[in-house]
Amino acid sequence: MRGRLRLWLLGTPLTSAAERHTRLPKLVALPVFSSDALSSVAYATEEILLVLVVAGAAALAWSLPVGLAIVGLLVILVTSYSQTIQAYPTGGGAYIVASDNLGVLPGLTAGAALLIDYVLTVSVSVAAGVAAITSAFPALDPHREALGLVAIALVVTANLRGIRESGRLFAIPTYGFIACMLILIGWSALRLLVDGVVHTPHMPHEATNPITLFLLMRAFASGCSALTGVEAISNGVPAFQPPEARNARLTLIWMGVILGSLFAGITWIADQYAIVPSEDETVLSQIARRAFGTGPFYYATQTFTALILILAANTSFADFPRLASLLARDGFLPRQLTHRGDRLAFSNGILALAAVAGALVVAFEGQVNALIPLYAVGVFLSFTLSQAGMIRHWYREGHPHSGWHALINGTGALTTALVTAIIAVTKFTEGAWLVVFLIPLLVLGFWRIRRHYDQVTRNLSLEGWTRTPMRSHRVVVPIGGVHRATLRAVDYARQLGPDVTAVYVNSEGDDTRILAGWAQWGDGVPLVVLTSPFRSIVHPLLDYIDGLLAQQGPEGFVTVVLPEFIPSRWWHHLLHNQSALLLKGALLFRRDVIVVDVPFHLPN
Amino acid sequence: MRGRLRLWLLGTPLTSAAERHTRLPKLVALPVFSSDALSSVAYATEEILLVLVVAGAAALAWSLPVGLAIVGLLVILVTSYSQTIQAYPTGGGAYIVASDNLGVLPGLTAGAALLIDYVLTVSVSVAAGVAAITSAFPALDPHREALGLVAIALVVTANLRGIRESGRLFAIPTYGFIACMLILIGWSALRLLVDGVVHTPHMPHEATNPITLFLLMRAFASGCSALTGVEAISNGVPAFQPPEARNARLTLIWMGVILGSLFAGITWIADQYAIVPSEDETVLSQIARRAFGTGPFYYATQTFTALILILAANTSFADFPRLASLLARDGFLPRQLTHRGDRLAFSNGILALAAVAGALVVAFEGQVNALIPLYAVGVFLSFTLSQAGMIRHWYREGHPHSGWHALINGTGALTTALVTAIIAVTKFTEGAWLVVFLIPLLVLGFWRIRRHYDQVTRNLSLEGWTRTPMRSHRVVVPIGGVHRATLRAVDYARQLGPDVTAVYVNSEGDDTRILAGWAQWGDGVPLVVLTSPFRSIVHPLLDYIDGLLAQQGPEGFVTVVLPEFIPSRWWHHLLHNQSALLLKGALLFRRDVIVVDVPFHLPN
Repeated sequence: MRGRLRLWLLGTPLTSAAERHTRLPKLVALPVFSSDALSSVAYATEEILLVLVVAGAAALAWSLPVGLAIVGLLVILVTSYSQTIQAYPTGGGAYIVASDNLGVLPGLTAGAALLIDYVLTVSVSVAAGVAAITSAFPALDPHREALGLVAIALVVTANLRGIRESGRLFAIPTYGFIACMLILIGWSALRLLVDGVVHTPHMPHEATNPITLFLLMRAFASGCSALTGVEAISNGVPAFQPPEARNARLTLIWMGVILGSLFAGITWIADQYAIVPSEDETVLSQIARRAFGTGPFYYATQTFTALILILAANTSFADFPRLASLLARDGFLPRQLTHRGDRLAFSNGILALAAVAGALVVAFEGQVNALIPLYAVGVFLSFTLSQAGMIRHWYREGHPHSGWHALINGTGALTTALVTAIIAVTKFTEGAWLVVFLIPLLVLGFWRIRRHYDQVTRNLSLEGWTRTPMRSHRVVVPIGGVHRATLRAVDYARQLGPDVTAVYVNSEGDDTRILAGWAQWGDGVPLVVLTSPFRSIVHPLLDYIDGLLAQQGPEGFVTVVLPEFIPSRWWHHLLHNQSALLLKGALLFRRDVIVVDVPFHLPN
Repeated sequence: MRGRLRLWLLGTPLTSAAERHTRLPKLVALPVFSSDALSSVAYATEEILLVLVVAGAAALAWSLPVGLAIVGLLVILVTSYSQTIQAYPTGGGAYIVASDNLGVLPGLTAGAALLIDYVLTVSVSVAAGVAAITSAFPALDPHREALGLVAIALVVTANLRGIRESGRLFAIPTYGFIACMLILIGWSALRLLVDGVVHTPHMPHEATNPITLFLLMRAFASGCSALTGVEAISNGVPAFQPPEARNARLTLIWMGVILGSLFAGITWIADQYAIVPSEDETVLSQIARRAFGTGPFYYATQTFTALILILAANTSFADFPRLASLLARDGFLPRQLTHRGDRLAFSNGILALAAVAGALVVAFEGQVNALIPLYAVGVFLSFTLSQAGMIRHWYREGHPHSGWHALINGTGALTTALVTAIIAVTKFTEGAWLVVFLIPLLVLGFWRIRRHYDQVTRNLSLEGWTRTPMRSHRVVVPIGGVHRATLRAVDYARQLGPDVTAVYVNSEGDDTRILAGWAQWGDGVPLVVLTSPFRSIVHPLLDYIDGLLAQQGPEGFVTVVLPEFIPSRWWHHLLHNQSALLLKGALLFRRDVIVVDVPFHLPN
């Protein structure tokens, strides 16, 4: 039953040898790796307007210059990253580039920043997707959190099936969204040309805050959420069909052109329509309603927006587990994150990402605006480290045009460093502080995990180790009565060695029944009765075992054979094995004591 | 450190032989077993008034006749129960009396009703005690739940120390409360005689509901919460100093006289002062404020009221674990409930009671009125079963005055059966339905636990059992690499038997390092390499072990020796043993497979 559900959800298992087949053509790779970046068109303009609106309706006109600055930044990033792809055809995520060229600490910093960013991408995208749904159907607003969790569950299932199927699944929403946006921008432009009408916005409370440089910088910082996800393609180069680097670069450029056009277009239309951000409806929903009316085109736009946003989380589900497995391979995260599941996806990483992102959706009540201030710091920090690493790379390589290449990446590094600082400062009190503190904490965690694994390796090393024979080996069987389970344990114990002793802890005062039973059934195995004036079963046993260990010297072992009841129903566990459990817990911390459970299966 | 904290909280451990010394003189037994019954004076009058007030201020005059009916019921109960003590000097709780005389099902029904009642006694008493505090200090009202939980924690600690210390601790609040109530009643009576003034109550919204018989019955049902706890002494007879039965009967009569006088007195004063129940202040607090003004006497009354109420929970903490241990001894509850702790108290029962009662305090937001409808059904059902059992008892005994004795208990049984029906019907929709459904569910649970234990006993029985020698015994050591931990496990395995095989699951494609390592260090133990095309570690091992089992026939065993890492810090567990854990979980359900953990202690 469980196996069939698994098969239906995840598909038939794939062998390790099947890996090379899960490679993506460009048209499939574009939605898989770009849905995050492209989908930010749905909320980035709104985030700019939300900052500007505190200075009144007139300030909203500044959204266009701010938006154009962000498009300029996009051009710099795409140029920089196409160089990264060229230099790292095997996949040049910020973690690898920074580790390679700048050292372990910058590498881990980039890794921590990216892991945080991937988690936030999932939360922000899902929350924005839900906002697109609730804009069209306001009655669903109270169910924001539940809708978000359902969306995450769907994306997880798709990803556990493996990346190729994901690509297929996500192509329609991405291309559908691009088409809707192009139609929306084109149609609006046409109407503006023909009608020439600009609606004046309705501003009930005209605010009086002045337009300061700080305000514009905050608007810019919020708008930079449009650029998150641009690096995804450079991390995923090995997933492309050969020639990987060339295909990845072309896909990156397509993505940059599409993203730049859509973002600039929507920001321009919002300005022309003089849209004012509202709590109840997204800016994009307002634009679509204004352009198409509340008809089939409007609902198509909202549907594709919701779909691409919810599925944009997929970018992170492709990249987070991959990065986690790289960190785990290098010993900075638990090793089980390198494990690929039935369908060759990194299952543990996928599930870990879903858990954290789901918790964030619940904690922030599924609201995009609350999550945005946490969002872009990590991305731009990793951009900076990655581009800085590239400068070093070109000089070390001794490439013919290394100066030119370094200049491009240097421009990228400087610009993104400046943007990181702007975001961290202008958004600090709104939540960016959390990320600023979390990154060093994660780096510390990575380092401690690595140190632990290193110490274990040293402790396990056979260098200079010589085999010492185990000498005396005593076997103890604690019994609570004379019955089939204990006799089975004693019989098994006698297979282990000649020196077997049964031990009974007498906490009730009368041991005649046990002694008589043992005389009949003990079959010559000596029985030791320990008295327990304080009614504890565990303490007298521990004292007895410690005494045996002390007798035996350094090469001696004590094996404790415990009859263990295996109940056939879960709640029967509450009725058995309480003393055995306590004893096992206490013995866990004694060296040279080995615990053997002899199972006895109980009836229904 | 942990040991010293335990010692300071609980005192030095007591040996089982010390048990006979923890017996109570009458003056100590009275507060221990009567604080529940006596403390209900603090809320029972209020519960009557709360029902009557819906029919308007004039209806409040009915509180006096209702209160007197309840005092009459008290006389019947005390007479009945003093006969129970005489007949059951070793402790005659409803469970024992009903089981003895009416059979298992009535016995279990009484047991279930009492267990529920004990839990509710704790919740109601604690909530009422907190209400006494918040009446005096309204600023504390938002912290009701926290105050309730702290109170429960204090009572638990006192009880884990053992019952004699509890008796000492609880004497002062109980006697202090009795003194306060007598002064309050006496002083108010004097003022009423001298002044003759009756204050007219302030009724902002005069209600128009008529005074119906159903309303009076509901008021009576609510007031019956005054009688809960009357049976406590008859359950605890063995805790009295010898002659146990005589001392217990005298204590019961004292308690009846005190409870009856205080309850009647407070109800009379409330009527004379024309007190109207309020959400913000308890009736008792209003009376005390009216009588003494908000001065030292008022605060003393509130303090002692709060103390006796919170400590009234102690009656349940003495009786719940005792009843649970009786049920556990008979196989109807998990056996660990019969275990006495360091100080001879039934620790597991005490902790279970605290957990459930604490959950109720939180669930009902620490409000008495919400809990009262659940309260009295269980008590009066157990009263009825116990008294009905006593009728049977007298006839079976062939006692000289059996007819007379049976008449007394018969009156008790009939009266309490009628009251049970009144409470269940009038309070059904307000919460009594929960208890009405919970009692059969608990009885079913008892019965299933007993059936399980009976089946286990049959399965463990040695009757007709003959020893069959264990024949072939193979030892398997799954290894993940060649290092100290695995070699230690292999060395240990060779002690267990001659037929040892190491097994490696190859999920990565390249096994040359393992093979080379084994050639150097394997010391002649054969190594089997299993290939795992789907990357699972566990499935190939399970298949291999199943194959060995199939080869060996019915008397064969397979021992799986697992090298287990014992980390020195809790979070290191996340970094190790993942595959071992999965394997152990899967092997748990295979008969004839025994798992041996060979611990390898890891550094810090």
